[in-house]
Amino acid sequence: MQPNWIKQRAYLTPNRVALSFNDQEWTFNELYLQSVRLAYKLNTLQLTNGKRVAVLAPSTPALVELLYACMQAHCEVVLLNSRLAKKELTYQIEDAEVDTILVADEELAKLPDDARIVPFSQLYETHESEYDIATQWDEDFALTIMYTSGTTGFPKGVCQTVSNHSSSAISSALNLGISEKDTWLCTVPIFHISGFSIVVRSLLYGMKIRLYEKFDAKKCAQEIIKGTVTKMSVVAVMLENILSEMERIGQKAHPEFSTMLAGGGPVPIGYLERAEKLNLRVAQTYGMTETASQTATLANEDAMTHIGSAGKPLFFNDIRIDAKDGEPIGEILIRGPHVTPKYIGQFKHKPTTIDGWLHTGDVGYLDEEGYLYVVDRRSDLIISGGENIYPAEIENVLLAHPNIKEAGVCGMEHDRWGQVPVAFVVLKEKISEQKIIEFCELNLANYKVPKQVHFVNYLPRSGSNKLLRRNLLLLLDDL
Amino acid sequence: MQPNWIKQRAYLTPNRVALSFNDQEWTFNELYLQSVRLAYKLNTLQLTNGKRVAVLAPSTPALVELLYACMQAHCEVVLLNSRLAKKELTYQIEDAEVDTILVADEELAKLPDDARIVPFSQLYETHESEYDIATQWDEDFALTIMYTSGTTGFPKGVCQTVSNHSSSAISSALNLGISEKDTWLCTVPIFHISGFSIVVRSLLYGMKIRLYEKFDAKKCAQEIIKGTVTKMSVVAVMLENILSEMERIGQKAHPEFSTMLAGGGPVPIGYLERAEKLNLRVAQTYGMTETASQTATLANEDAMTHIGSAGKPLFFNDIRIDAKDGEPIGEILIRGPHVTPKYIGQFKHKPTTIDGWLHTGDVGYLDEEGYLYVVDRRSDLIISGGENIYPAEIENVLLAHPNIKEAGVCGMEHDRWGQVPVAFVVLKEKISEQKIIEFCELNLANYKVPKQVHFVNYLPRSGSNKLLRRNLLLLLDDL
Repeated sequence: MQPNWIKQRAYLTPNRVALSFNDQEWTFNELYLQSVRLAYKLNTLQLTNGKRVAVLAPSTPALVELLYACMQAHCEVVLLNSRLAKKELTYQIEDAEVDTILVADEELAKLPDDARIVPFSQLYETHESEYDIATQWDEDFALTIMYTSGTTGFPKGVCQTVSNHSSSAISSALNLGISEKDTWLCTVPIFHISGFSIVVRSLLYGMKIRLYEKFDAKKCAQEIIKGTVTKMSVVAVMLENILSEMERIGQKAHPEFSTMLAGGGPVPIGYLERAEKLNLRVAQTYGMTETASQTATLANEDAMTHIGSAGKPLFFNDIRIDAKDGEPIGEILIRGPHVTPKYIGQFKHKPTTIDGWLHTGDVGYLDEEGYLYVVDRRSDLIISGGENIYPAEIENVLLAHPNIKEAGVCGMEHDRWGQVPVAFVVLKEKISEQKIIEFCELNLANYKVPKQVHFVNYLPRSGSNKLLRRNLLLLLDDL
Repeated sequence: MQPNWIKQRAYLTPNRVALSFNDQEWTFNELYLQSVRLAYKLNTLQLTNGKRVAVLAPSTPALVELLYACMQAHCEVVLLNSRLAKKELTYQIEDAEVDTILVADEELAKLPDDARIVPFSQLYETHESEYDIATQWDEDFALTIMYTSGTTGFPKGVCQTVSNHSSSAISSALNLGISEKDTWLCTVPIFHISGFSIVVRSLLYGMKIRLYEKFDAKKCAQEIIKGTVTKMSVVAVMLENILSEMERIGQKAHPEFSTMLAGGGPVPIGYLERAEKLNLRVAQTYGMTETASQTATLANEDAMTHIGSAGKPLFFNDIRIDAKDGEPIGEILIRGPHVTPKYIGQFKHKPTTIDGWLHTGDVGYLDEEGYLYVVDRRSDLIISGGENIYPAEIENVLLAHPNIKEAGVCGMEHDRWGQVPVAFVVLKEKISEQKIIEFCELNLANYKVPKQVHFVNYLPRSGSNKLLRRNLLLLLDDL
């Protein structure tokens, strides 16, 4: 058992600032009291003790409060990605069999009609029914559920338990250090593990979050220069934008700014060199939804001597390479208290680990000192601006089009986003690239829509007829 | 399961300094390698995997290495207090049914003859037998066993598991913060939980320990003034000695020195006021052997506004007051992952908790904000220079003397040690105070020997004939 984090934190440090947004601030006690009132409203709607609630909202204090309330009400929260297309959201809502869908009013249009929808405005108007909020939480309770795709292209609902989240926050603290002076700048979406893990750290550390609804390189650069924040989570493209802004105005990071935690794919060496000149310490990390954020993190002091490495595992975690005899490279396996114990929905019977190890599908190696290098992302994963895109998911959509016979998708390098998806299709009947893209837009989040569609006569396949996505780009030479 | 801390730490930060003693330093990798060799020697002696080993040694690097080795060999270590009398040590060794007694050569004379004794010199000469050292530890494994007395006067062997120690270190970090720059000054004995918990923190945080075999106020003051250490564990008398030294030489604490963790009883207000003038931040704490160190700690910022309080519980811990209806004061109950799950030896069937709560025997209350105040120590506990002394233990010794009919022991205020024990006895046959003291010296650690023995005609008792130790001092008025 663990204490109810919200209640415990409000008891321990009631007057510390928990959250800052624009010009407003909230203490832990203020957020606690507001979340109790919201939990009483959830109780009126019979949303307590194990009910499953989907939440769709932008990253604002209203979302933080609501998540606090859901945790206090001990609901399992399915965090919906607001960038997804209506069909994708519908799949997740159905797969998760949620009891209710709590939606910020401005996001209502993103969802299909559903009797289970409760807009925030309606929740706020609900009367409060007092009840005994649990003071302890079961370690195995699924605090959050996040969907992530995989080889099949069908997103899986990943349970992240109380103990997954707490061990992640603890391991991160043991590695990066914690100080009363810390403020974590959160401009990544809270519906992602990168954002939600900041909320968890805030509660366990008693740490302030400086929240932005959307990433704004200029404002972030100012916070870093002035030292109003001490840590920040970024993906490569955000880091680049901040570096450009700081270079433009010719200012360096404040000495109190301690760590730029860079996840969601590798950081180009050039960025690291530029960061160093700006006194910006970058810690590259490797993690995923199934590991409730970081599994391994490269200390800044090692960044230039271990270029391209994702570092060593955090204290309570293990990493193993599942390699063939004599080969150093193989699939990356992960073990630790941060690894999800179960999926929900159609994958609920699929185990998340084999003999205790999560098989990531990613390929990599450990060097002689034990630093992890990720060589190939799982299932030809495309990482675009920090968002994971699984080719199979896009291929499934393309193959659903009546004119398309075969489809293959891969990533193409892109200056701004790192990678973008491009598609290769073999047609049954003629159709324009534009029409195919429009079809994809109906079914996929914008960032997953192929930026190019190439018409080819065949797709590269292995002897066993398996699509060789890595050879797709070679087709461009023949076009 | 948790990773083998020693191996994991040496893997993660091999080149960080783990330990400093006089002018010598050891990195985590050096200590790891030495402890592997020692573990191979222990293996030759068949001391691995669950064997129970008593250890008696002063707080030197040799002890740290040996403890590392015992942990790697997965032995349960009974930490013997070198201040105890031979009879007390004999009791603990017998009660714990240890397989072997590892003793620093200079401490050999403190023990009775015992075939199980292996002096350090003999261990060092043992050849090494390689074997597979476990890479993972069971959370419930008793890493250490420490003896502590109680109401009965018979010391109980308290198991402190892997998870007790790790949760204690983690909770402490969440409260006090951790930084790569930290160095913890250890001048408290390692056989106490106050000292051993510093070893655990060092491993989990990757933090340097600055070790002294014995407390030396002048040297400690210098370390604090120069900022060569950032945290230190003290009891009130040590704090006072350091304050006096700093006042004498007119120097303040270095700004990098962050926390003086003061345990083992209350800190007089005067000390806090003097500490403040010297920029020395004191965090008062409440903990015990059964809770693997701190349960509650008062933040320095709250020290002057909550004088006499031991603070609030650490994040994963709970405190409850078991009070009669309407009364604010009652027994202090503790719950959390740091609470021992079991005793060994003659108390092995005695549960450590009731409905999950450890009944401390201490009396206290929580104020409106939830700050803990300890009003009365358990079982008339006497705290002398940070050492716990249980009156019943001394009374048992006195009652074993043929000339003594009844005996009562209580604490008397003392300028230097806080308290010292004094005895009140009803005689069967005449005997001198000197003789009684000599008898006690044979059977008890020096600090437990009564500083005065008063001869009285009766002892104050309740209606049910229970000794009222708190009324003993009133007898002095009649003498």
